[in-house]
Amino acid sequence: MNISVLGCGRWGSFLAWYHSAKNDVTLWGREGSRSLAALRETGGNRYLKLPECVCLTSDLGAALESAQLVVISISAQELRALARCIQAYPVAGKTFILCMKGLECGTGDRLTQVFRSEVTQPVSVAVWVGPGHVEDFTAGVPNCMVVDSDDRTVVDFIVETMSTDLIRLYKGGDLVGTEVGAAAKNVIGIAAGMLDGKGLSSLKGSLMARGAREIARLIRAMGGNELSAYGLCHLGDYEATLFSSHSHNRQFGESYIKGEPYGSLAEGVPTVRALVELGARYGVELPICNTIYAILYEEADADAALRTLFTRSVKGEFDS
Amino acid sequence: MNISVLGCGRWGSFLAWYHSAKNDVTLWGREGSRSLAALRETGGNRYLKLPECVCLTSDLGAALESAQLVVISISAQELRALARCIQAYPVAGKTFILCMKGLECGTGDRLTQVFRSEVTQPVSVAVWVGPGHVEDFTAGVPNCMVVDSDDRTVVDFIVETMSTDLIRLYKGGDLVGTEVGAAAKNVIGIAAGMLDGKGLSSLKGSLMARGAREIARLIRAMGGNELSAYGLCHLGDYEATLFSSHSHNRQFGESYIKGEPYGSLAEGVPTVRALVELGARYGVELPICNTIYAILYEEADADAALRTLFTRSVKGEFDS
Repeated sequence: MNISVLGCGRWGSFLAWYHSAKNDVTLWGREGSRSLAALRETGGNRYLKLPECVCLTSDLGAALESAQLVVISISAQELRALARCIQAYPVAGKTFILCMKGLECGTGDRLTQVFRSEVTQPVSVAVWVGPGHVEDFTAGVPNCMVVDSDDRTVVDFIVETMSTDLIRLYKGGDLVGTEVGAAAKNVIGIAAGMLDGKGLSSLKGSLMARGAREIARLIRAMGGNELSAYGLCHLGDYEATLFSSHSHNRQFGESYIKGEPYGSLAEGVPTVRALVELGARYGVELPICNTIYAILYEEADADAALRTLFTRSVKGEFDS
Repeated sequence: MNISVLGCGRWGSFLAWYHSAKNDVTLWGREGSRSLAALRETGGNRYLKLPECVCLTSDLGAALESAQLVVISISAQELRALARCIQAYPVAGKTFILCMKGLECGTGDRLTQVFRSEVTQPVSVAVWVGPGHVEDFTAGVPNCMVVDSDDRTVVDFIVETMSTDLIRLYKGGDLVGTEVGAAAKNVIGIAAGMLDGKGLSSLKGSLMARGAREIARLIRAMGGNELSAYGLCHLGDYEATLFSSHSHNRQFGESYIKGEPYGSLAEGVPTVRALVELGARYGVELPICNTIYAILYEEADADAALRTLFTRSVKGEFDS
């Protein structure tokens, strides 16, 4: 099968590497992309070496034309702009897999909503999310991930053709929950980093239970299945996000608390804005998200805000 | 209030320390107990120093007589024998709090069932479980825990009088789920240690999602609320059990895989037997518990067994 991967950062380059074992793969990066330039110069990056059969290009039209299946892995807030560019090409009948986690700021839209609102040709759209760090996969450490879509046949096709001993794919059955859960885990990751930064790492257990709980409530209010928060898309990603030294979001939270600069992308920063918007829209209380939002966007004192979160009034665990 | 704590190991001695801030506390240990002898000699143990006001005794009748509230923290498989001894004294009207996690081997009984089957006088019984390591608490690091009972007024009383800035108590509402979840987390902890021992730590994310899922299914089959598996009693204890270096069960699993001797109690070892019995009785598939059981009790090859677990047939995430 011909597969094009759009986005050549850490995760995009890994997916090109992963799919190239069985498929003809084109890897696209924006003209001027430093990641693409580095791949062209060295044939790899700090995470992996690409097989020579992977074709590198900055020509979006060419990447789309040759592919039956298009994998997208870019920054979530840039998806709408890319989707507009994609709509300019004939892509009817193709399948797009969004291998990314986030919600659009301002609209609170899920990524498949963003994509479909710009790409109005008849295409299939799926998401592929869950745990797993590139550093582990390239070292041969396997993991489980989940694929979801509004079209069951697309889920079946992807899972049955692309599951390997390295990435064990599960079939999701709740696109709303899978997308919201996947996006929200980055926010819980920032909260975990803040606890680490305060020397309160042992509170990460309670954070896991209470964090998954509030995301479950939001998913339910949005019409999804609350159990999705406890699946691979969210809880299943907590090891990689709340505990791993590879996690950008956890590291961002820790650095933020310690007042240290942190250069890399932390997707949870825009995502928490979108979640707070969604919480307000659907009337769902999101104490952890609101606390992280207050610290990041409203200059709330982190000490006091985290303490207030912990000392909320005594109540039942599953009261809504 | 007069409180007696039965059991003077790590957790029992901590609870005596905790309650002594506001109450008159007696700490009981078996005649001949090494932990009790050490407390008598040094006034403390490697975890803490007891205030002098805590009365140490090996006289069970005296410890029971003086107390309105009796906290029990011993090895789960020894509860029935202790309960039989307690029944020999007049304890009608007293409240017992089981601060322990386990299921009885052979019967599969929950600990409140074991206790009530031996202590037939009219008493109140509650459980107090959830995350938190003594090492963290005594260093001032707070955590959340959960109290549950078949009597709501007992839960309300305990939570409202005993919650502090160090231990934030939540009110559980599902005694079956709280007890099974608390016991089962030790088994998932052993599985986590086995993954650590194999260099597969990043699979602990999937373990969290899939482990909580199978325990949720068991709880539901037993008449409890499946969400309890995702509460403080189980998921909320995953940080302390699956990630912390203080966790006996995690460390046991890692040592087992590496073929290193491990002396300490790992409650998950008897608990997994009871869980496998319950799974068979209620017709619930428990792939993770069954795998750990096969490795520990049936000499299954750990490599092969863990691999088989990972490569189970592709399916939906929340299929039952």
